[in-house]
Amino acid sequence: MPSIDQTPAWQALKQKAQEVGKRHLCDMFREDAGRFATFSHEAAGLKLDLSKQRWDQQTLEDLLALADEAGVPDAIRRLLAGERVNVSEDRPALHTALRLPQDASLVVEGEDLVPAVHATLDKMATMVERFHSGQWRGATGKPIRDVVNLGVGGSDLGPLMVTHALADYRPADTHPVEVHFASTMDGSQLVDYLMRFDPETTLFVLSSKSFTTIDTLSNANTARDWLLSRLVEARQEGVDRELVLRQHFIGVSASPDKMAEWGIACDHQLEFWEWVGGRYSLWGGIGLPIALVIGMDGFRDFLAGAHAMDVHFQKAPLEDNLPVLLALAGIWNNNFLDIRAHSILPYDGRLEYFAAYLEQLEMESNGKSVTNDGDIVDYSTCPVLWGQLGPNAQHAFYQLLHQGTQAVECDFIAPLARYDDVEDPATREHLMGQHRLTLANCFAQSRVLMLGDDAIADDGPRPEHKRYRGNQPSTTLLLERLTPQTLGALIALYEHKVFVQATIWGINPFDQWGVELGKKIANETRDIIEGRQGLEAMDDSTRGLIEATWQAARD
Amino acid sequence: MPSIDQTPAWQALKQKAQEVGKRHLCDMFREDAGRFATFSHEAAGLKLDLSKQRWDQQTLEDLLALADEAGVPDAIRRLLAGERVNVSEDRPALHTALRLPQDASLVVEGEDLVPAVHATLDKMATMVERFHSGQWRGATGKPIRDVVNLGVGGSDLGPLMVTHALADYRPADTHPVEVHFASTMDGSQLVDYLMRFDPETTLFVLSSKSFTTIDTLSNANTARDWLLSRLVEARQEGVDRELVLRQHFIGVSASPDKMAEWGIACDHQLEFWEWVGGRYSLWGGIGLPIALVIGMDGFRDFLAGAHAMDVHFQKAPLEDNLPVLLALAGIWNNNFLDIRAHSILPYDGRLEYFAAYLEQLEMESNGKSVTNDGDIVDYSTCPVLWGQLGPNAQHAFYQLLHQGTQAVECDFIAPLARYDDVEDPATREHLMGQHRLTLANCFAQSRVLMLGDDAIADDGPRPEHKRYRGNQPSTTLLLERLTPQTLGALIALYEHKVFVQATIWGINPFDQWGVELGKKIANETRDIIEGRQGLEAMDDSTRGLIEATWQAARD
Repeated sequence: MPSIDQTPAWQALKQKAQEVGKRHLCDMFREDAGRFATFSHEAAGLKLDLSKQRWDQQTLEDLLALADEAGVPDAIRRLLAGERVNVSEDRPALHTALRLPQDASLVVEGEDLVPAVHATLDKMATMVERFHSGQWRGATGKPIRDVVNLGVGGSDLGPLMVTHALADYRPADTHPVEVHFASTMDGSQLVDYLMRFDPETTLFVLSSKSFTTIDTLSNANTARDWLLSRLVEARQEGVDRELVLRQHFIGVSASPDKMAEWGIACDHQLEFWEWVGGRYSLWGGIGLPIALVIGMDGFRDFLAGAHAMDVHFQKAPLEDNLPVLLALAGIWNNNFLDIRAHSILPYDGRLEYFAAYLEQLEMESNGKSVTNDGDIVDYSTCPVLWGQLGPNAQHAFYQLLHQGTQAVECDFIAPLARYDDVEDPATREHLMGQHRLTLANCFAQSRVLMLGDDAIADDGPRPEHKRYRGNQPSTTLLLERLTPQTLGALIALYEHKVFVQATIWGINPFDQWGVELGKKIANETRDIIEGRQGLEAMDDSTRGLIEATWQAARD
Repeated sequence: MPSIDQTPAWQALKQKAQEVGKRHLCDMFREDAGRFATFSHEAAGLKLDLSKQRWDQQTLEDLLALADEAGVPDAIRRLLAGERVNVSEDRPALHTALRLPQDASLVVEGEDLVPAVHATLDKMATMVERFHSGQWRGATGKPIRDVVNLGVGGSDLGPLMVTHALADYRPADTHPVEVHFASTMDGSQLVDYLMRFDPETTLFVLSSKSFTTIDTLSNANTARDWLLSRLVEARQEGVDRELVLRQHFIGVSASPDKMAEWGIACDHQLEFWEWVGGRYSLWGGIGLPIALVIGMDGFRDFLAGAHAMDVHFQKAPLEDNLPVLLALAGIWNNNFLDIRAHSILPYDGRLEYFAAYLEQLEMESNGKSVTNDGDIVDYSTCPVLWGQLGPNAQHAFYQLLHQGTQAVECDFIAPLARYDDVEDPATREHLMGQHRLTLANCFAQSRVLMLGDDAIADDGPRPEHKRYRGNQPSTTLLLERLTPQTLGALIALYEHKVFVQATIWGINPFDQWGVELGKKIANETRDIIEGRQGLEAMDDSTRGLIEATWQAARD
């Protein structure tokens, strides 16, 4: 197979970019009155407007030809069928199996996966029911009130983002359980909780695919000792170590052995599978905090929304396929217009952690430079992604988007309807007004980024520092409203976008070899800091930093 | 004046980059055993290690010559003396005046500013004392317990970041007051508070330099009606609108007239000055939430730390001046090595919001493309900045840093000492261990980014996807420990770094004309969404989006 950048489709796009790259979005809109109809698409409760991308119909056709040449249709089939698309680890990537409905069947290498997936969901449902009925009790007999998720990366960002986004969907009339997250290895967040929470009513969920993540296990050990010293050493009648471990810890992992070894009771383990990548794992046991917030019915709705996007991804032709189109816009910007930064801008405070979530999903998946054939790419892969709530970013970094020297692609994300169900009429009016204001800002910003000075009538000469060059491309993604279903579909949309881009770049989005060496060197560095190994092998900078650490400990 | 990129110093650096740009950090460290000593500097409780930048002694000398040629020494003098360095708005930028000690004097255009600055601090101190003694009471006579800061951008990011970072420094034995932040114009955060807080004991701080920020005023109006409906309409004896406004709102702004018009009592106003930019305003009244958390003594320590950095910035020669050196590293990466992305990576959970804070400080200040002479630059200015807590980002986007195709400059930030004052010995041991683990990760990651495969002994052939190319430059910034003083110094360091870079690029870091047009168009767009104006002038995309909004409201 030739490298993708040697194919005729890629070369045609390079040619095309010479020409289209010089045109301004302003002119494209002037010349083509029907851009919105041409470049807008809907699926699974989402509306995707790609008309503000710097492309025309012909560019899109060329990009679709590129997708074809890269084998995207077959790659989609292989992904969803459970073939071993994660080549470097020789296994499938089956997060889509986690959201198959109960009556589906997916036979992979001779085994139907659906029964096991739903057995885990049923086990989760039982656990959630025990919390919500106040029947999950701590070692001293009091119902659990605070659940702290100990996990990092894929075991943190997804549940954190979704529980925050869907907090309005708490089921009524349940025993109140608050869900919290502690992820940082330095113990900062954990210490704060330990100072505030009652050990008798606090439970920890240890989430780690490998169950060897040192960040999480460090926090877990600190938490375990905190519980033991307060519940066992305080010699409460009948409360022993085993009871504390049993009633105050749940484990979620792909390694039941390691969970058992740590002391997690067997029926308090949620297992998942090696074929689920960490950053794709919120659809199963890792999603327990989500189910604790929105209830199991809500969680199943969330899965159903993602599944609706999966079905769309599988069945829609490329030219009407949302993940494919979103991926192609990114390829066009990155590889042909040389736009290497991508900003994620939700216009809804509930999506506060969405950008952080996508940063992992995209940069950990596609921050690669070696193809599946072992060749080093000589084209750009994943851009730098970052973001912030859009209205807040307007007061923070939009200055750079409008008048800086860096080209940036933006994704604007907003729900169309909101707050119409607030009970108090006066508050409802206020809040619906705030929602319209927010949508107005969302639409206005993408318009100004596109048109620049042309967004307003010519009001005579202005000094250069008050001028806007425009021509920054953007995508607008509208949700009918923010619900478990549409959020599920939104996440699945980006998951599949990442897969399509990886397919075109010829890289594997499901491994992460780039994080291994750092773990190894960190262990060695800790040994040196703690005096178990000498400084000799260190470079001059590391030596200086470690010596400063020792000096500080002596002071 | 010739454009900076036409000067001999710039041209010499371009030449230099041809040569140095091809060398690997590995080799630089091999060839120069004393890099740490050469490239490390200390001031105001901070240690800056620039030895992992891709430069040598000669490069640095050339960069210092560039700074000289750009007039950096005179610019520093003019900034600190209160000259009108903000040329497009024709005023000084005097955030440094906010942290001058009481016995200093700074006469600007005939007036000594220090007395007014300290009068405001004294007014703040009186307010803080009333809260901390339980004497600030709501309209029904109960002491205020929850203070919600309503502000966005510069009126939010600074106080949010610092209160989170310094929460350990709460003074003992005060009436407990919890500080919260609501910034998003869509009301998301505010609604959450309104559902949970008691109106009788909740106070809102309205923070807005202009007091016209629609995001903040929208939230303020919703909050006011919430209080009035619950406290006045519920007809509590003697509680009227005026009393509620008086006891439940504080205003912080440069416009006393607008505060009064809104209904803020005169003695509950904290004023600041037009010569303080929003993103530089946390050192005065906008810092009230900080003082409410760490006490006024702590706040004065915070100012003293920043002042120590100001003195260093003023007095240290360029070659030993931390803000200048940090700025030059950025210029070298951005303009000569073509590295357009910059990641901020604190290894301390308390600095969770530091990256978001810096995103504004840097990108709003230097996301410009027009020089002070009105010329359009043809070199790159501010890079894209983003970040995350380092240990968490290791599990999120470090994959891209280690094996992606984008070159990225990184700032690693960590405190040397921590947790040695935790009372309980077992918990202290656990936590000090977690701190050493965190430092080990910090040092290990910058080492692997620098050395790549060379960070470990050659263990035979490895497949390409397990290889690391290294050569990503980074800075390491160590704080003796995280205190009000060192955090003040750290922020001031970055403020001045931004100023030095702006000086070299010839741009104005103190205006933000790029956010004006969006506000105007947002108002127009809201009028259209709400039917007060027609769709005719809109482009096809905006029309489609607005029609989708109407359709959703009908459904």
